[in-house]
Amino acid sequence: MLSIDAIENANSGHPGLPMGAAPMAYVLWTRHLKINPNKTKWLDRDRFVLSAGHGSAMLYSLLHLSGYQVSLDDMKHFRKENSITPGHPEYELTDGVEATTGPLGQGLGMAVGMAIAEKHLAAVYNKPNLDVINHHTYTLVGDGDLMEGISHEAASLAGHLKLGKLIVLYDSNDISLDGPTKMAFDDNTKKRFEGYGWQYLRVEDGNNLENIDAAITDAKGNLQQPTIIEVKTVIGYGSPEQGTNKVHGNPLGAKNVEAARKFYHWDYVPFEIPGAVYDRFHELIVETGEKTYQEWGKILAKYQENQPELAQQLAASFNDRIDSSWVKEVSNYHENMPAEASRVTGQKVISAISKYNPNFWGGSADLFSSNKTNAADSEAFEPNSPQERNIWFGVREFGQAAAINGIALHGGSKVYGSTFFVFSDYLRSALRSSALQKIPVTYVFTHDSIAVGEDGPTHEPIEHLMSLRVMPNINVIRPADANEVIYAWEAALVSRETPTVLVLSRQGLPILPNTDELAVEGVKRGGYIISPSQKNIADGILIATGSEVNLALMAQTKLLKEKIDVSVVSMPSFELFEQQDSAYKEEVLPDKIKNRMSIEMGSTLGWERYIGRNGLSLGIDKFGASGNGSLITKHYGFTADNITRLFENYL
Amino acid sequence: MLSIDAIENANSGHPGLPMGAAPMAYVLWTRHLKINPNKTKWLDRDRFVLSAGHGSAMLYSLLHLSGYQVSLDDMKHFRKENSITPGHPEYELTDGVEATTGPLGQGLGMAVGMAIAEKHLAAVYNKPNLDVINHHTYTLVGDGDLMEGISHEAASLAGHLKLGKLIVLYDSNDISLDGPTKMAFDDNTKKRFEGYGWQYLRVEDGNNLENIDAAITDAKGNLQQPTIIEVKTVIGYGSPEQGTNKVHGNPLGAKNVEAARKFYHWDYVPFEIPGAVYDRFHELIVETGEKTYQEWGKILAKYQENQPELAQQLAASFNDRIDSSWVKEVSNYHENMPAEASRVTGQKVISAISKYNPNFWGGSADLFSSNKTNAADSEAFEPNSPQERNIWFGVREFGQAAAINGIALHGGSKVYGSTFFVFSDYLRSALRSSALQKIPVTYVFTHDSIAVGEDGPTHEPIEHLMSLRVMPNINVIRPADANEVIYAWEAALVSRETPTVLVLSRQGLPILPNTDELAVEGVKRGGYIISPSQKNIADGILIATGSEVNLALMAQTKLLKEKIDVSVVSMPSFELFEQQDSAYKEEVLPDKIKNRMSIEMGSTLGWERYIGRNGLSLGIDKFGASGNGSLITKHYGFTADNITRLFENYL
Repeated sequence: MLSIDAIENANSGHPGLPMGAAPMAYVLWTRHLKINPNKTKWLDRDRFVLSAGHGSAMLYSLLHLSGYQVSLDDMKHFRKENSITPGHPEYELTDGVEATTGPLGQGLGMAVGMAIAEKHLAAVYNKPNLDVINHHTYTLVGDGDLMEGISHEAASLAGHLKLGKLIVLYDSNDISLDGPTKMAFDDNTKKRFEGYGWQYLRVEDGNNLENIDAAITDAKGNLQQPTIIEVKTVIGYGSPEQGTNKVHGNPLGAKNVEAARKFYHWDYVPFEIPGAVYDRFHELIVETGEKTYQEWGKILAKYQENQPELAQQLAASFNDRIDSSWVKEVSNYHENMPAEASRVTGQKVISAISKYNPNFWGGSADLFSSNKTNAADSEAFEPNSPQERNIWFGVREFGQAAAINGIALHGGSKVYGSTFFVFSDYLRSALRSSALQKIPVTYVFTHDSIAVGEDGPTHEPIEHLMSLRVMPNINVIRPADANEVIYAWEAALVSRETPTVLVLSRQGLPILPNTDELAVEGVKRGGYIISPSQKNIADGILIATGSEVNLALMAQTKLLKEKIDVSVVSMPSFELFEQQDSAYKEEVLPDKIKNRMSIEMGSTLGWERYIGRNGLSLGIDKFGASGNGSLITKHYGFTADNITRLFENYL
Repeated sequence: MLSIDAIENANSGHPGLPMGAAPMAYVLWTRHLKINPNKTKWLDRDRFVLSAGHGSAMLYSLLHLSGYQVSLDDMKHFRKENSITPGHPEYELTDGVEATTGPLGQGLGMAVGMAIAEKHLAAVYNKPNLDVINHHTYTLVGDGDLMEGISHEAASLAGHLKLGKLIVLYDSNDISLDGPTKMAFDDNTKKRFEGYGWQYLRVEDGNNLENIDAAITDAKGNLQQPTIIEVKTVIGYGSPEQGTNKVHGNPLGAKNVEAARKFYHWDYVPFEIPGAVYDRFHELIVETGEKTYQEWGKILAKYQENQPELAQQLAASFNDRIDSSWVKEVSNYHENMPAEASRVTGQKVISAISKYNPNFWGGSADLFSSNKTNAADSEAFEPNSPQERNIWFGVREFGQAAAINGIALHGGSKVYGSTFFVFSDYLRSALRSSALQKIPVTYVFTHDSIAVGEDGPTHEPIEHLMSLRVMPNINVIRPADANEVIYAWEAALVSRETPTVLVLSRQGLPILPNTDELAVEGVKRGGYIISPSQKNIADGILIATGSEVNLALMAQTKLLKEKIDVSVVSMPSFELFEQQDSAYKEEVLPDKIKNRMSIEMGSTLGWERYIGRNGLSLGIDKFGASGNGSLITKHYGFTADNITRLFENYL
């Protein structure tokens, strides 16, 4: 009833799920979930993700009753400004909320990531009789989650990886926002999930606590397969309008709430909870949880004694410690060395980071051979080799991104994913979720421009750079050469609350003059003068990123021959540059220098921030083309000669 | 061998699929596909979509041999600049290519859309013994397509809709780019697709033409279920490296090509095709096709005689004719009428368009109740009511977008889809595909800003407006009131080569002064002076979109009291404004007026195009929040008072 009261009080919310799914959630929390409300960041706790995030009122009710830092007053402020009980659950905002959910399907995807993390860490750290990592991941999903494409990617991956400790409770109520789900959806979930290699269980009556209990016990007994338990429920159970879409997303209204109170024989005023209920939750959850936690503490103590190095490493991993020794190992790039694709430098960097940081791992969506993102010192993370650190995500970009979010949320890992830059479109919502949850995962996107060439416009990013720059709390970095790659990766690793997008080239990039020194600070600051003008006040500024910085430098030389003396600014990251103080910005881009040109193989809208209304942009505002990469780039005007000519005409 | 020669000649491409899948493609094209290479736009032809677009060389070979406008010379220019044989198939560029493919899974999604179109048009137009619409949709998919999440959405939708004339050939070769698919993928495709309500057939030997033929015949016999035929093949069959990922995405090399020639007993030099092969294709495809086409022509003639009105309507639909009479019917909004959410106006407009245009239809991803995008005069398009025009896409945003692309590509429809604006992220790659293919579908995205309120940051768009504005060939329109909605929809309907994104509000918007007249031209031109300054040369310009235009107008009045005389520009569409001549732009935004302010509840990066480096932006560069919508918008500074204060301080 607490969920209903909260929704009614907010006059906004989704009562349907809490009313139908309450029994299964109750059974899970009171009889199975391994948690300690006094130690909510306990690393070996079970994870619970409410994938159907619109049922947030139910989660807050559970947290409140279980003794988390969610008060009755917080419940009364459900969906109100500055409350810790927002419309959809938000990670870090509310004690006990393990993931931000709401965008459907992604909670399941993140749960898969958490289960991946558990499997990996258990394989790395557990020793005979010393299981320091041994917990389940539960997620509660609705019809909407299972209609989403990401549910396929996540479930197919989980089945392949045999994530036996992943258990999905499926609130199967036959109703979605618009009406009966059968208007659009009649999957046979059993066949579907068995096709993925899952165990499928079914509870015919969602109000039968014993059957739910038995199914969860069954699921826990199967460590070779993830399990989905389809629990048939009645949406809005107990309301006169139960079983219809009217109870999905709107408050019940006073009359129906009254009727529900009667139905449940609930004789209390709104927000009144009898002491006996609190006592029961305290006994079943807090006391049991505390006891289990103490037992785990004993195991950990023994572990620390027997495995001091591993114990230290485990603690360091959960504290997100990063060893930067790798930088020295790779920072040996100087001008006149052969050109190198930034994806190739990226691979060397990943291998070096991996060598010094056992908690660093990641994968690719079936593009290791192209992204070059596998660590040299590790093999494939597979059911039989879960200690390994190269994750084969398959052709599942969105599933990959949700999974790395889940791996990061679980704790103990610094994680990355990768695919072609153009296919960042497939995972965009999960990337936004990384940003919203402030989890500093790294996305490595290679094949960064029309220079991809032969694969043509479907594979050539145009708008992707700018379209990610406008997303809040993401650092997009497009390095100009090997040295910039190194410091871009360093920026990604030290980031604490912001995910990083690294945009790398397919084609070779020359090592630019002085970047071995300039890029150290320059990348961190987002933009820097890579080559100053000869006179004090330049005739103009050329601003470029990635492969175009070299063109700008060549144009600078040509322009100087025409007595036009410009400076060249390398601007690998708008976001990092924006964070600098105005003195630094003024130093790089002096206000009085009005003649400015941007050079980047991507959309021009947005460059006006630096070049102004009357600046000159060499960019691309149409789709790419199929053909030889260097011919295509020439055709689109990306040559030093063309830049020189354009700038001369512009002056 | 032609595909191999083309790939070898380009020194770039994917030989694996053409070599393994050639037999099934050969059987399909020569024995089943209803096409007429002399009438490639024949409306009742079978559609064939190569979802595994990296196998383009095979498609071009088939088109060449079948007598389409693809010459041997074109084959020699495979993947070269300005050829009609690019790396991935591109719609409209090449005769006979039905869809642009390459981004995996979307070809299947578009094929589902084509089959939806066929089912609908057949239900609307066919009369007893006069089947003017009666064809199949075939698509060839690979492992990668089936790993993608969109394959779930598309297949689940197709199963629900009982698209019996959809037949999928699955080139199941156990190899993807990085290696054996079993490293990441071991779905039981039979169980999975039977779970969706499909018929599953299997051909164990992908080189057995008779078995393939029998399976396709079987599939055609089942009109109640879509069919997937899993054909086990050997990737790169005939090359010494067959069955490995080495043949997936790289040319074979001279030595292995030679070996393949021997294997196939192919005694011809590269690009030499014996006359007998041409003759055989001519006989099986051109002659048969011409005959079938003539027979259909007879049916059509009879149909024109018996059903003159319907025949005319059918022809008009395939010519994309739109009746604009609807505009008059809804254009009765004047100042002082009650405020109306732009999504509500949108619903009235959709119903009006639908009334006058039987070819106009669309749907929602389980959000009809919120998007307000169902036409009043129609019911749900369901297996038993395929003549209806409101498509219940389910919670399948990406599948919906690919499907509307397919419906548009099929011809005969003007189609739209809808969801919450924030979830445009889920379908972004399909929207890009609309733009790339130049198909003028319409996306209706409602709940356009933080004004959504209680649902919180996961449901509040921030970066979405700007992130779509940077995408090539899309018109993003965010109307300020009911009148702007009408003309935004009109712009969408008259668009011939550009998809339109309509961004509509959840909350009520007042009818603004004079928009009943100004918006007629104003929206079409992207931006216009909605309220001029009193003096000739304004003290500044306030530029706003959507719900913020009203705030700008209120601030204008307040500023005038402070003797600051500004003009207000409503800028519903950057893209349409950019297409105007410089005289018009100068009229709306005179260069000499430097004091400019943008007001929009979204990312500010990009507004500098109009306000310059030193302009003032009131926008949002962080995520939204949960709470009452109007309190949240105030909290983020969107009030007339705050705008007034900010502009005063800025001057």
